[in-house]
Amino acid sequence: MLQESSIDSSGCRFTPLVVVELASDASEETIAWLLRRIRDKQQNGGSELLVEQISPGIDAEEKENPNMFLVGASWQRMLAGAEEIGLYKEHEDGFMRSFTCASQNGFKDFKGDGDGFLSMAECQYIIKHELDTLRAKDETHVPGHESAKLYPGKSIIRRLQSKGILIQIFPLHEREELKRLSFSWFGKVKLSLQPLDDIRHYFGEGQALYFAFLEYFTFALLPMALIGIPYYLFAWEDYDKYVIFAGFNLVWCTVILELWKRYGATLAYQWGTLSRKKAFEEPRPAFHGVLGLNPVTGREEPVYPTVKRQLRVYLVSVPFVLLCLYLSLYIMMIYFQMEGWALKVHDEDPTFWTGILCFIPSIIYAVIIEIMNIIYRHAAEILTDWENHRLESSYQNHLVLKVLVFNFFNCFASLFYIAFVMQDIALLRQSLATLLITSQIMNQLMEAFLPYWFQRRHNNKMMRKLRKRKILEDKELPLVEQVRLEADMSTYVGTFDDYLELFLLFGYVSLFSCVYPLAAVLVVINNFTEIYSDAFKMCRVFKRPFSDPASNIGVWQLAFEAMSAIAVVTNCALIGMSPQVKAYFDNSEQQLIFWTVGIEHLLLAFKFMLTFIIQDVPKHIQIKLACLEYKSMEALKRKKMLEGSQPSKTYQ
Amino acid sequence: MLQESSIDSSGCRFTPLVVVELASDASEETIAWLLRRIRDKQQNGGSELLVEQISPGIDAEEKENPNMFLVGASWQRMLAGAEEIGLYKEHEDGFMRSFTCASQNGFKDFKGDGDGFLSMAECQYIIKHELDTLRAKDETHVPGHESAKLYPGKSIIRRLQSKGILIQIFPLHEREELKRLSFSWFGKVKLSLQPLDDIRHYFGEGQALYFAFLEYFTFALLPMALIGIPYYLFAWEDYDKYVIFAGFNLVWCTVILELWKRYGATLAYQWGTLSRKKAFEEPRPAFHGVLGLNPVTGREEPVYPTVKRQLRVYLVSVPFVLLCLYLSLYIMMIYFQMEGWALKVHDEDPTFWTGILCFIPSIIYAVIIEIMNIIYRHAAEILTDWENHRLESSYQNHLVLKVLVFNFFNCFASLFYIAFVMQDIALLRQSLATLLITSQIMNQLMEAFLPYWFQRRHNNKMMRKLRKRKILEDKELPLVEQVRLEADMSTYVGTFDDYLELFLLFGYVSLFSCVYPLAAVLVVINNFTEIYSDAFKMCRVFKRPFSDPASNIGVWQLAFEAMSAIAVVTNCALIGMSPQVKAYFDNSEQQLIFWTVGIEHLLLAFKFMLTFIIQDVPKHIQIKLACLEYKSMEALKRKKMLEGSQPSKTYQ
Repeated sequence: MLQESSIDSSGCRFTPLVVVELASDASEETIAWLLRRIRDKQQNGGSELLVEQISPGIDAEEKENPNMFLVGASWQRMLAGAEEIGLYKEHEDGFMRSFTCASQNGFKDFKGDGDGFLSMAECQYIIKHELDTLRAKDETHVPGHESAKLYPGKSIIRRLQSKGILIQIFPLHEREELKRLSFSWFGKVKLSLQPLDDIRHYFGEGQALYFAFLEYFTFALLPMALIGIPYYLFAWEDYDKYVIFAGFNLVWCTVILELWKRYGATLAYQWGTLSRKKAFEEPRPAFHGVLGLNPVTGREEPVYPTVKRQLRVYLVSVPFVLLCLYLSLYIMMIYFQMEGWALKVHDEDPTFWTGILCFIPSIIYAVIIEIMNIIYRHAAEILTDWENHRLESSYQNHLVLKVLVFNFFNCFASLFYIAFVMQDIALLRQSLATLLITSQIMNQLMEAFLPYWFQRRHNNKMMRKLRKRKILEDKELPLVEQVRLEADMSTYVGTFDDYLELFLLFGYVSLFSCVYPLAAVLVVINNFTEIYSDAFKMCRVFKRPFSDPASNIGVWQLAFEAMSAIAVVTNCALIGMSPQVKAYFDNSEQQLIFWTVGIEHLLLAFKFMLTFIIQDVPKHIQIKLACLEYKSMEALKRKKMLEGSQPSKTYQ
Repeated sequence: MLQESSIDSSGCRFTPLVVVELASDASEETIAWLLRRIRDKQQNGGSELLVEQISPGIDAEEKENPNMFLVGASWQRMLAGAEEIGLYKEHEDGFMRSFTCASQNGFKDFKGDGDGFLSMAECQYIIKHELDTLRAKDETHVPGHESAKLYPGKSIIRRLQSKGILIQIFPLHEREELKRLSFSWFGKVKLSLQPLDDIRHYFGEGQALYFAFLEYFTFALLPMALIGIPYYLFAWEDYDKYVIFAGFNLVWCTVILELWKRYGATLAYQWGTLSRKKAFEEPRPAFHGVLGLNPVTGREEPVYPTVKRQLRVYLVSVPFVLLCLYLSLYIMMIYFQMEGWALKVHDEDPTFWTGILCFIPSIIYAVIIEIMNIIYRHAAEILTDWENHRLESSYQNHLVLKVLVFNFFNCFASLFYIAFVMQDIALLRQSLATLLITSQIMNQLMEAFLPYWFQRRHNNKMMRKLRKRKILEDKELPLVEQVRLEADMSTYVGTFDDYLELFLLFGYVSLFSCVYPLAAVLVVINNFTEIYSDAFKMCRVFKRPFSDPASNIGVWQLAFEAMSAIAVVTNCALIGMSPQVKAYFDNSEQQLIFWTVGIEHLLLAFKFMLTFIIQDVPKHIQIKLACLEYKSMEALKRKKMLEGSQPSKTYQ
């Protein structure tokens, strides 16, 4: 399973799984203390992991950081860790069950020594969890660093991280496995589904769910794309056909989102994350406050009053976001004025230069939108940091919400303006197409090719350096060099941007689907290339990320559902405004609006009912879950019954 | 705690808790078998309960049913049953914990013999649960009743019930306790809050939650009532003031429903039902199908294909409901035509007789509405029965939905017609007031006074009969007579009708609040009397119901929320239609509608966000729940750690 083994100081061979990089100026005392705590037995409050310093390469250069450590664990320790994090594995009876050491032999694929039972990603997750939960005992500060205060129960790794003593901690890639995965994922020429189980095996559930969603989303849009093509080709403009198309789209968007929940639940069940209990979340490394008592654990830890945080959110963040939205609106209005002015100049005296002038406002606006997005993203991160959320999940939710609202506004405000204020359907169609195509090209460039190009340049430099030292032409890269190479790769920051991109694409497809039927086609084509570029990026450009035991796509499900609700409103309004419909209701404007609003409300109510009618978890998985619960209850009852026959024990 | 004890056949005294009444023609064989199974030890598949036949009264009349049995249990058995149903009780450390016999001494108020630890309602619930889960072993039919088929695992009581061999099973009242409760509940003259804890203690959580909701709802409407009074008194008709009042009402309705969730969760936590796990639901007695394997339990039981049931629901029930709605609409139209005709006759030649003629359509319509409601209710029950739902909860949900939709339509359709088709605000106000006041008076009459009057007549007859036999003027009623008296009382069919009434009242208050500000005042007054009449009914008119360990008001929460969403739409439309607003937008009808629709959408979005912002469970209870979970996880970890020190045991 693993390509190389190392020997730790105690003389026992171990497989290196995770790299811990400390600052190069970390004091000897700190390092020695940290290593001791990591190696210490669990009874003594240690992690009982294996850890070893990387030997500096031959001809090591001055600037290379010597404080890099490889962490692994004995097989027994790994199984105990798997039980601790509540890992779900497939039992021999076909059910997914929580793994325990006592019942280990009942699990499928468990063979005495356990090789091949836990995937490398799982092992790395266990090690990360063990390191994260390595807690201070009676130390009041990190030895060798007076300023890094500790208190009993504080996670040591998080304190080291927040103080900059720990630079990074990342899992190692597995060259052979990665090569196999890359080949089956994007190396083959023939079209096939993604190897989702292998992706999950290598990158973990969170990543695999993203790729599953991307693939599902692409296929789900196919019907819309197929129906949209004839509309575009034959330029069907009949009222009836458009209404049918829009109606189909609205219902379809709701249905695919509901069906995704079922599909996602099926995957999460197979991967054992559906019923896995979330561990108690540690405070974020950056969370600060006065030392107090945690009301849940009863341990000392920093506390920060919720009221203060709420005040910061509602009195600072919310006004700030609203201000940014206003600014975005203001810039959009300037853009429309500039465009109007440019058109007027061109109409009055059309020359070659005025023709070019017409494009300039759009270009400036596009550039400014991008700049605003970047600045806003940074501001949102700073603000959310300042809100001082205790948990990473709460931090992420607040950040996602801020960025989501602004991006939605920034991308679609001009389209809304054109659609509902200017009421210029031809311009809307043209703007939509331009925006969609430009953003797709920009995304693919920014996301995959640029980082790849940088990485490639960097790798080549490294390889040249290596070749200079020793002549390793066709031999395997030694472990030490692999570690140094990977430590320099860029860090994957999570699926946030990927989901955001899909969310905006979904907006382009659903919000104005009735005026531009080709949008779905474009998005489908984009998604096919997106799968390849994202896969490529994951395998070649970034450090391996720690796996994330997600059971669903979280807040994004809600975001997509909100978008599909907004789409009902916009599409109904667009159809109500179309000249064909107006001609149909030529006797009464009021009647028209009543009908539009009425149908819109009915559609919204229908969407709402659909979410009730379509169950979130498929029946066969519900039955499996109920079955497992029933079995454990029956087992408990039997146990009670047996105890009951010795009444002296039960009824004291 | 209990007023009387009895002695069972084995010679041990026991407190009678539950009465089981078998058909008077039940064969000796059946009775003997049933009693043996109830008394049998749990190891042998029995219930291990105490049961005794009631001795026929002195001078027993021919028609008195001799097959009445009292059921009770030993104290040890009761505690084991409490553990089985997963009862939550307050622990000495202040947390609500699941009761177990092994840890019984840690619970608050637990005193060796356990007196006062379990309330009588809890004991009765345990006995009901034990009787319900008394299962057939290898019997193929009920001995003495060839036609009553059994199969291993079938609940015996449910089969007896479905075959009519078991007539009823009900818990006994507790005269002393009931007298105390009645006094503190509705006996005192001074105004005070209801003794919710006592109500829960006597009637169980489901009942107590209803009364808590009734009380909460009354107080929550007070602000609306107080603000509404000056509007009515001074006949404020300004546009601004009305808009403010309507806006306040809409936000207020959302807020009170969200806050109720929190209050309800607090109550459910205190009463131990919030985190109590639902037991696996048994199939309903009336559920039928071919014998197959239950996929969850793996036991043989009747199965009925879901597809068939879905077909029945969507192809028969839904069209039937739609047809009924259409019929209701049709009758409403006839009513309006009759009324128009009567008015015309009166206008043409007004005499005394034509004046009376004007009232006749309303009277006929009101009567027909009542008749339709009753017929529809029966039809809905038959249809839902025919849909053959496996679980009682699913049966209830489908029945509630059917009745809810029809009642909503039947009660409000004429108001909607007056408001939005006739657009006659004066008539709307008048109809609303008439409907509201009439329905309140009708309800109070039908619900409390009629049953009370019947019951009183019946009781008096019984007492006269008793007096004839023995002269017991001021003595206590003997147990046997109490049982016979209670067996003849009407059966309380659950909180369905009570919630339905509140739901319709909420509709009168919220849907058209902006045209009739006095509605809230009327509803508040009604609710105050409703509390008294419902309490009276529970204590004096009905048999004691079995307690129902509910943790919330279930589907009604959803129904009330749906009503408040519809209220946003109707109120916005009413304001948009008012002449004052129309005058304000006199230049453009279109502008007016856009604004109305826009504000309505904003209000709906705001409502939606409020449900996210206001958390369903108060913080302090969330902390308590998390705390308990954390403690049990830590305990588990410690246990593991201890086992870990004996490695031979853990790592085999």
